Amino acid sequence: MNSSEFRRRGKEMVDYVANYMDGIESRQVYPDVEPGYLRPLIPAAAPQEPDTFEDIIKDIEKIIMPGVTHWHSPYFFAYFPTASSYPAMLADMLCGAIGCIGFSWAASPACTELETVMMDWLGKMLELPEAFLAGDAGEGGGVIQGSASEATLVALLAARTKVTRRLQAASPELTPAAIMEKLVAYASDQAHSSVERAGLIGGVKLKAIPSDGNFAMRASALQEAMERDKAAGLIPFFVVATLGTTSCCSFDNLLEVGPLCNKEDVWLHIDAAYAGSAFICPEFRHLLNGVEFADSFNFNPHKWLLVNFDCSAMWVKKRTDLTGAFKLDPVYLKHSHQDSGLITDYRHWQLPLGRRFRSLKMWFVFRMYGVKGLQAYIRKHVQLSHEFESLVRQDPRFEICAQVILGLVCFRLKGSNKLNEALLQRINSAKKIHLVPCQLRDKFVLRFAICSRTVESAHVQLAWEHIRELAATVLSAERGQKRAGAEIKS
Amino acid sequence: MNSSEFRRRGKEMVDYVANYMDGIESRQVYPDVEPGYLRPLIPAAAPQEPDTFEDIIKDIEKIIMPGVTHWHSPYFFAYFPTASSYPAMLADMLCGAIGCIGFSWAASPACTELETVMMDWLGKMLELPEAFLAGDAGEGGGVIQGSASEATLVALLAARTKVTRRLQAASPELTPAAIMEKLVAYASDQAHSSVERAGLIGGVKLKAIPSDGNFAMRASALQEAMERDKAAGLIPFFVVATLGTTSCCSFDNLLEVGPLCNKEDVWLHIDAAYAGSAFICPEFRHLLNGVEFADSFNFNPHKWLLVNFDCSAMWVKKRTDLTGAFKLDPVYLKHSHQDSGLITDYRHWQLPLGRRFRSLKMWFVFRMYGVKGLQAYIRKHVQLSHEFESLVRQDPRFEICAQVILGLVCFRLKGSNKLNEALLQRINSAKKIHLVPCQLRDKFVLRFAICSRTVESAHVQLAWEHIRELAATVLSAERGQKRAGAEIKS
Repeated sequence: MNSSEFRRRGKEMVDYVANYMDGIESRQVYPDVEPGYLRPLIPAAAPQEPDTFEDIIKDIEKIIMPGVTHWHSPYFFAYFPTASSYPAMLADMLCGAIGCIGFSWAASPACTELETVMMDWLGKMLELPEAFLAGDAGEGGGVIQGSASEATLVALLAARTKVTRRLQAASPELTPAAIMEKLVAYASDQAHSSVERAGLIGGVKLKAIPSDGNFAMRASALQEAMERDKAAGLIPFFVVATLGTTSCCSFDNLLEVGPLCNKEDVWLHIDAAYAGSAFICPEFRHLLNGVEFADSFNFNPHKWLLVNFDCSAMWVKKRTDLTGAFKLDPVYLKHSHQDSGLITDYRHWQLPLGRRFRSLKMWFVFRMYGVKGLQAYIRKHVQLSHEFESLVRQDPRFEICAQVILGLVCFRLKGSNKLNEALLQRINSAKKIHLVPCQLRDKFVLRFAICSRTVESAHVQLAWEHIRELAATVLSAERGQKRAGAEIKS
Repeated sequence: MNSSEFRRRGKEMVDYVANYMDGIESRQVYPDVEPGYLRPLIPAAAPQEPDTFEDIIKDIEKIIMPGVTHWHSPYFFAYFPTASSYPAMLADMLCGAIGCIGFSWAASPACTELETVMMDWLGKMLELPEAFLAGDAGEGGGVIQGSASEATLVALLAARTKVTRRLQAASPELTPAAIMEKLVAYASDQAHSSVERAGLIGGVKLKAIPSDGNFAMRASALQEAMERDKAAGLIPFFVVATLGTTSCCSFDNLLEVGPLCNKEDVWLHIDAAYAGSAFICPEFRHLLNGVEFADSFNFNPHKWLLVNFDCSAMWVKKRTDLTGAFKLDPVYLKHSHQDSGLITDYRHWQLPLGRRFRSLKMWFVFRMYGVKGLQAYIRKHVQLSHEFESLVRQDPRFEICAQVILGLVCFRLKGSNKLNEALLQRINSAKKIHLVPCQLRDKFVLRFAICSRTVESAHVQLAWEHIRELAATVLSAERGQKRAGAEIKS
């Protein structure tokens, strides 16, 4: 394909994308296909001779779309939002064209420098403490990771290196393995599964701290665990506090946990993957209070800040904590500026070596929405979740299972887990809307997350009407079963 | 930005991209900027009110492009190629629009299933042993990772889990930490720095095996290291063999190393990040002989197979080795099909949870080029590197430093490292072409990698003429210094 054909096909693809977005509401949000559907639809091997672009475009509707879960449908209320906006898509086209790999400053100075400045822009939007910003001469700064999972792992590894060096400095006879065996990390029992995974990968113990009645980690429970572990000869070194848990968007108590971590000289990492975007609104910024106690902080603009995946924003107070953990410098990656102190080689901040020019997406989105536009977007989602919450509260058959703070509503039918599992199954079989569940203590709970960029009050109301209808069916089926049970017994 | 503005701006962006590609040859390949150039050019904070698209487009040429290293310029001969093709860019636009996060089958069945089938297509192109393919009921299969670094780390972690379970089954009193302390991984002294990093992250020892005169790892040296370690009570568990090293594109001797790893019950991972693409050509497939001994194999279609970054292809013979190492299943990620055996939840195969619909890029590229088109592309690059090699060989002032097998030529002026460092500095200061060096044993060597999709014989010849001219200057400066030295002494 030469550039003149690309000009033509690229414009057709722009229209295809716009048509897809314009028409997404009329597509069934969750697909009908069964596992293994795709393989029989396409050849067993790649073609020897080229296919045409027309062939491929036809196959998109025939083969791909029937198997797509439409995350950007206004009837998609599952998981958490994943960002999608036209400015981010435009930036991604440019990113693909420049196609540089930004592992070092020299590999493409613009790629590195725009990232540093965009992370400062975003940090300022969140009113992060100055210590997290790079500025002209700061010791901290931000980096775009691929995902919150990677950010948690990078923080854990940096903390592991730091504590190992500290202990070895005090007791040179200690081997890294002897230290690792004693290291303990902590997170709430509501923390994301990626935290447990980071512990597994890093080869350290991870302990779940029982959360309180609001599903929040409190200092008392954390302190108790640390004291017990220290008494057993173990070494607390890392705590993950979550702001906006995946199950129910609860918030760990940073103002309690933060000072404790500082006192114990334990690395505090904050995972605000979903909720972080909301902190650009002054009325939600208080949820971030206590960030000043943290060593590292992360959230995903690719969730709720209109920057298409992937773009996970991570800041550290001391960049040398990261670079110290990962720095290896082969000759083929050395360049003349690297010891100047002015430059950043982001490969030392992350797990992979390669990286795309992702900050272009932030630049386009921040500029084309403006801070006010982004705030309005967040506020609309929060308002819609409260609208759904009040609909649920008006129906005495239902209960709200966790405080609604941002864009997630956890709710269920009053009654058994079985009843709620049946309701969810009906919802997801009907495929008019899509939800996923969570488990809160012993309760099976339905999650209603405001996700789509284009979701409006009308969609939320339709969804609620639909859920009510299915609930009626499920409840009447349950009554029928109970009656049948009673008749058999009588 | 609404869809009608996106239709307009998207088409403008398509033209911008095509213009950039069409005109890239006339841009200086390496930028003039100094560290810190960008920050003063843009505001200190994000705008409150939206900027216009025109503002941004103007700033691309004013702020971004002056700081870009143009990886797709036909005068870029640094590092290794990074893929760029129009079909991949078109696919990426579609990927951004669908914007699904494919962590599980249910999260978007098409995303998972196309990936499995594309990895089979690619595996067949390489003539991988059947055991690596998923097929309808295979135990192996492929996954798209973000980078070769991640693939190596994932393989190392899977191997670590596997050996730990095996040893604990035999001796239940052993703790994971006690086992980890004794684990040893091995790679050639020519292996990529990411292998050393994987060892650091995984908390295991990594030993560098001295390579032979052709910079290849041989079984004898590996066996010697293993025997020594076993005698010291250590446990060899993981070997990385490299096909196409970063420094000089040398190949470890798989046919020797493979059987040794199998005999020792050690996981063998093959890193063919750059070279792997070439194996789609029958005349280069022999370089992959011995892959049948491996547990996992990886290469980067985002390097040399025209699939834009990121797309790192990894296969395993036993997918349960990966999923066993990473599987954690919170309720909010469970879905009704996951225990059917038919489906794949790729989140268990990788480090992050989220993942883009990257297989679309493979599908577009494989179909629009056809296997023959891709083979022709590889062959052209190899031919150009041999052309450069023969130009170097015709000049008695220069020497070739490693066998030229694929698209990389390692060369230098006969003489001191200082002389060659001076030559490289002149080359990269002139900025007509861009190269990076490597260190081969005690020699400072220049790497000339055929990179761009549009590079032709004329560019290679111009580059060589330019290098010869600069070499003459450097040599004459050296002669001048020697004369001056002699005069001072006399």
